[in-house]
Amino acid sequence: MIRLSTADAGFEAGFRALLDSARETTAKVDAAVAGIIAAVREQGDAALLEMTARYDRWQPATAAALRVTEAEIDAARAACAPELLDALDLAATRIERFHAAQLPRDVELDDPLGLTLGLRWGAIDAVGLYVPGGKAAYPSSVLMNAIPARVAGVPRIAICVPTPDGALNNLVLAAAHRAGVTEIWRVGGAQAIAALAWGTESIAAVDRVAGPGNAYVAEAKRQVFGRVGIDSIAGPSEVVVLADASQNPRLIAMDLLAQAEHDESAQSILITTSAQMANAVEHAVEEALLSLPRAAIAGESWRRHGAVIVVRDWEEGAALTDRLAPEHLQVMVSDPAALFARIRHAGAAFLGPHCPEALGDYIAGPNHVLPTGRTARFASGLSVFDFLKRTTWVSAEARGLDAIGPAAVALAEAEGLTAHARSIAMRLGQNAAPAAPPASPPDGA
Amino acid sequence: MIRLSTADAGFEAGFRALLDSARETTAKVDAAVAGIIAAVREQGDAALLEMTARYDRWQPATAAALRVTEAEIDAARAACAPELLDALDLAATRIERFHAAQLPRDVELDDPLGLTLGLRWGAIDAVGLYVPGGKAAYPSSVLMNAIPARVAGVPRIAICVPTPDGALNNLVLAAAHRAGVTEIWRVGGAQAIAALAWGTESIAAVDRVAGPGNAYVAEAKRQVFGRVGIDSIAGPSEVVVLADASQNPRLIAMDLLAQAEHDESAQSILITTSAQMANAVEHAVEEALLSLPRAAIAGESWRRHGAVIVVRDWEEGAALTDRLAPEHLQVMVSDPAALFARIRHAGAAFLGPHCPEALGDYIAGPNHVLPTGRTARFASGLSVFDFLKRTTWVSAEARGLDAIGPAAVALAEAEGLTAHARSIAMRLGQNAAPAAPPASPPDGA
Repeated sequence: MIRLSTADAGFEAGFRALLDSARETTAKVDAAVAGIIAAVREQGDAALLEMTARYDRWQPATAAALRVTEAEIDAARAACAPELLDALDLAATRIERFHAAQLPRDVELDDPLGLTLGLRWGAIDAVGLYVPGGKAAYPSSVLMNAIPARVAGVPRIAICVPTPDGALNNLVLAAAHRAGVTEIWRVGGAQAIAALAWGTESIAAVDRVAGPGNAYVAEAKRQVFGRVGIDSIAGPSEVVVLADASQNPRLIAMDLLAQAEHDESAQSILITTSAQMANAVEHAVEEALLSLPRAAIAGESWRRHGAVIVVRDWEEGAALTDRLAPEHLQVMVSDPAALFARIRHAGAAFLGPHCPEALGDYIAGPNHVLPTGRTARFASGLSVFDFLKRTTWVSAEARGLDAIGPAAVALAEAEGLTAHARSIAMRLGQNAAPAAPPASPPDGA
Repeated sequence: MIRLSTADAGFEAGFRALLDSARETTAKVDAAVAGIIAAVREQGDAALLEMTARYDRWQPATAAALRVTEAEIDAARAACAPELLDALDLAATRIERFHAAQLPRDVELDDPLGLTLGLRWGAIDAVGLYVPGGKAAYPSSVLMNAIPARVAGVPRIAICVPTPDGALNNLVLAAAHRAGVTEIWRVGGAQAIAALAWGTESIAAVDRVAGPGNAYVAEAKRQVFGRVGIDSIAGPSEVVVLADASQNPRLIAMDLLAQAEHDESAQSILITTSAQMANAVEHAVEEALLSLPRAAIAGESWRRHGAVIVVRDWEEGAALTDRLAPEHLQVMVSDPAALFARIRHAGAAFLGPHCPEALGDYIAGPNHVLPTGRTARFASGLSVFDFLKRTTWVSAEARGLDAIGPAAVALAEAEGLTAHARSIAMRLGQNAAPAAPPASPPDGA
C-alpha cells in the first residue's frame, strides 16, 4: 500500500508510478494455444475428448456426453437452496430490466432531396460464452454475460464451462438456465474457445465469443479474433473509492477489501479530502483483514497494489480519478451526483453511502463485466451493444441521385476511381427505372 | 470468376469454396513492427525523424516540422478546385447529419424499491486517425473517419498521414480541415500508430486509434490494442449485388467493377434469379473493362474472386447473402425494401436501381468504413459509437439496499466472497447515513 498526498513534492512521480505499475505478468502461452486451436480445427470432437481427459481429469464416453442434459440441469436446480434460486431470479430480473432499457432505436432519415437513409440494429445469430470452472465458478458471471445476449435477441447462446474431475457446479447450471442459455458444453480452456470459433462435429461455430478466463482462454480469444468477434480481454479488477470526512471508514475499508479479495493483482484505491479519514481507513483495513476468510489474498493485493491518496479538494480528486479511469468507482461524498458529473472515465459508478460496489457485482442491474486497467478511457462494460450489430442503408429516387451524384462523381474522379464515378454518372438524368435487359444504358458508355 | 447455380448438384461445394477462399496473404511483419514500436517508445521524436527519412524519403528539420501548419492547410485548400471543395463540403454535411442522428440517449431508470440506475454516454478524450498516403490517399476516408469522432464530441482528433518524398495531398488536408481535425502529423506506417498509442515529445498519446492502412499499420494496431482502443482490421473490400430480370446489366457490371477496381483482392458477386441477366452482366463486365483505366486491377479481381450465382428464388438469394455477410449489398429488385428486410447480415445496403454503392462511398451519409470478410455477422461499420463509451451508475437509498441487499449477500457467500457479502451486510438496516468517523458500523463487524 502506498500513501500519497497531492500536497507533497513527490506526488506526481508517485502517482505516475501507481498508474504505470504492472499488476499482472502475462504468461507466454501463445504457441501452446496455437497448437490447441490447430488440434481442434483438425480433429474436432476427438481433440475435445482427449483434452478434457488430460486437463479436466474425466473421460467423456462420447462427444455427446460433453453436452449437459436437461435432466442434469433439472437436478442441479433441485440441489440448489431455494433462497439462492430466489436470489438468482431477483438478480436476473433486475439485469434484464436494465439491459432492456439500453436497447437502441433504428434510425430513418428522410432527405428532401429524394433519398432515405437508415440504420438498422440486428442481433448476432449465435454467441459462445466462456464460464470459468472449478474454484472460480461464478454464477453471477453467467447472468451478466448471457442476459445481455438474450435481451439483444441472440437466438443461440452456447456456454462452455470446464468441469474439473467431471463435477458440475449446480448454481452455475441454475444461472445458465435462468439466463436463457440454449446449450451448455462441458469443455474448458483454449479448446473451448477454438470449438466455439471454428465448430466441431458436435458444437456449431458461433459468431462472437465472450466471457472471462485464464491466460490460455484470453490468448485463444486473441487468436480467433477476426474469425469471430470477441469481448475485451479483462485484466485484474480495480476500485477507486472517493470519500469525504463524513463517511464511515469501516464501510470503506470493507469496500476496498471486497475488491482486494478477488485476487492478488486486484487494486483498491481510496481518494479522500481528509487525512484523518485516510488514517482511519488504513486502520480499519488492517482490523477487517483479521477476520476475513480470504485475508491472505486480500492482504497481498492491498499491500502490493493498494493506495490511499489525500487530495486538497475534489477538483484534484476528479482529475486523478480520470487519470486512473477505474473499472469501479464509489463516490461517497455529501453530493455524490455532483462529483460523479465531473468525472469522465469510469466503467461503473456507485453513488452514496448505501451503494457498495458489491451490490453491482450481483444484483443492482448494470453489468459487472467492465473495462479494467485504465481502458475505461475508451472502452465500456458489457451491454446489449456487444450482441447487436448495425446495417446502414440508403435508398434513392432518380432525383435524389441527380441532386448529389455529381459531387460523388467529382470526388471519385479526384481519387482516380473511374468505375466508381461511372457507376454513378451512367445513372444520372434518368426519370424512371431503366427498362428490362438488355436495354442500353442512357449514356451509351 | 466462377459461375454457380443453386440448381446444380455441385452448388454447395462450390459456394463453400467461395466462402472459404482466402483473398489475402498476410505478410509476416510482426517482428518488424514490434521493433518499430519499441524504437518509438524508447526514442520518441528522434525515431520518427529517422524513420520518416528512411521510409518516406524526406528529412524533417526538427520534430516540429512533422506537424502540418495552418499556413500549409490554407495553401492546400487554395490549391483545390472549388467544385471539389464544394463536393467535400456537401459530403461532410451529409455525413455529419447521418451520424448526428445516431447519437444515443442516456438511460435513467427509477426503481420503486429505492434505487436509481443509469447509463451515461461520454466521448473519448483523444483519437488518432491513420490516413494512408501516396497513391492511395483518399480524402473521402478522412471525412468518414474524422466526422463520426467529431460528432461524438471528441475534443482532440489527430491525423497521421505519410507524405512520401515530402509531398502533401491537398485534398486530404482540405478534407481534414472540413472534418474538424485538430492536428495533422506527417508521419506514416507503424511508427505513426506507435506515436499515437504511446506518445512522443511532440505527439501526445491518444486513447483510440482508427483508420485503414497497410500490413504494417494493421499489425501495429494489433500490437497497441489494449493500450488504446482500435477499430477493426479491415480486409479486402467486397460487394454482393442482388438483381432480378428487370435491371440494366450494364449498370450492374459497372457496380461490380467499382468494387473490383479497389485492388486485386476485392470481391464482386452477383446473385440473380435470371440466367439471362447473369449472361448479360458477364458480357457487360468484359465490355466495360475495355475502357476502364484501372482495368488491370479490376480485371484481376473479377477473374480471381468474382462470382455470378443464379438462384431459383429470393429465399435462396437471401440465405446465400446472409452466409456471405457482405460488406456492401446492392439490392436491385422490384421491391428492394422487402428483400432487404429478409437479410440479416450486411455492412451497408443500397436499395433500388438509382443507388449504386459508390454513392455511399462518398456522399450518401452513412459511413464507408465497413466490416469486411464476413465479419458483418457480428461487426458494424464505423459510427459515433466507436468514439463514445458508457459509464453505468447506481444510487441507492437505505431502503433500496435493504430491499435487494440480502439477495446479493446470499450470492456473494455462495461464491465464497466474504468481503463482498460483508460490505453489503454491514450497511443493512440503516435508515440514515452513518455518522461522521470514527463511528462504529452498526453490525459491529
